[in-house]
Amino acid sequence: MIQAQNKDYKVVFDLSSKDSVNQISIIREIGLITGSSPDVKIEVVIYGQGLDLAIKDRTTLQSAVEKIISENKATFKVCAMTMKRNNIDKSQLVPGFEIVPDGIYELFSKQQQGWGYIKVGH
Amino acid sequence: MIQAQNKDYKVVFDLSSKDSVNQISIIREIGLITGSSPDVKIEVVIYGQGLDLAIKDRTTLQSAVEKIISENKATFKVCAMTMKRNNIDKSQLVPGFEIVPDGIYELFSKQQQGWGYIKVGH
Amino acid sequence: MIQAQNKDYKVVFDLSSKDSVNQISIIREIGLITGSSPDVKIEVVIYGQGLDLAIKDRTTLQSAVEKIISENKATFKVCAMTMKRNNIDKSQLVPGFEIVPDGIYELFSKQQQGWGYIKVGH
Repeated sequence: MIQAQNKDYKVVFDLSSKDSVNQISIIREIGLITGSSPDVKIEVVIYGQGLDLAIKDRTTLQSAVEKIISENKATFKVCAMTMKRNNIDKSQLVPGFEIVPDGIYELFSKQQQGWGYIKVGH
Repeated sequence: MIQAQNKDYKVVFDLSSKDSVNQISIIREIGLITGSSPDVKIEVVIYGQGLDLAIKDRTTLQSAVEKIISENKATFKVCAMTMKRNNIDKSQLVPGFEIVPDGIYELFSKQQQGWGYIKVGH
Repeated sequence: MIQAQNKDYKVVFDLSSKDSVNQISIIREIGLITGSSPDVKIEVVIYGQGLDLAIKDRTTLQSAVEKIISENKATFKVCAMTMKRNNIDKSQLVPGFEIVPDGIYELFSKQQQGWGYIKVGH
């Protein structure tokens, strides 16, 4: 199902939850959206309790996330302040995750640039 | 209490939760907001686990939602990708619900058009 | 860590949760963000089940919130419709909290003015 949609479809997801339903749902949403709107831009910003998704030894979704990143379907950004507070360094992150100084600022900035904001939750 | 507010008050609610507290709260919010700001435009976008609110045999809020729709207090839009994934077809929806191809796109699009975004959650 | 960021960093938090993890996280976020971005503007809008944070006899975070307000690090606004529905009057609020007629409208209005929107949740 290819949609005749706005060519400028871009959305930033706010993930601050460690709930597996939420973490799995973001993977599923990316698959569904990129399937129907191949030109969409998607970014996932991870902070607070969302951090586990970014850590190699904690997430069960590493291969799914790495596939998304390798296929350029979405970018994943992790909050440096959240990492510091949890004593996590860059070597512990799933390969391909990028670090931003302040996850909230990243979410603000993307909204200012016209990206849609979606809070991941259920 | 009629407010002297921006005539352009329009808000889109993101409902991806099956939690009854959340589903009831959206009904209550619509009553409160339309009571104080009769010219407000409200849209509720349902996707993911929010789907039950849209299905005749699953929601306990059908009469409340139908009243809102019949009085033009809000529109309710359901994500077609969520319906497909859950094997729900149009005949199972509460009358008056509309279908959009992609609930996330609908939320993005409304934000681009200047609607306020509110995630329903507690 | 002082960031070279957009001078116009301003963010409105939507707090409709009584969950202590969420209520504590907003206090922590304010500390982290104002620490790294001293010029940030932060507003917290409280409605629905978030109300307890605003009530002197119910919150355990009163001294933390009063400190934030006294240092002008954030403003806290409570929805009058939520207060009325819960039979709470102004005398019961933590000093420094402001009342807005409609919390959802406040969140809409701030988004229209270019503030980033963040739903507090986990």
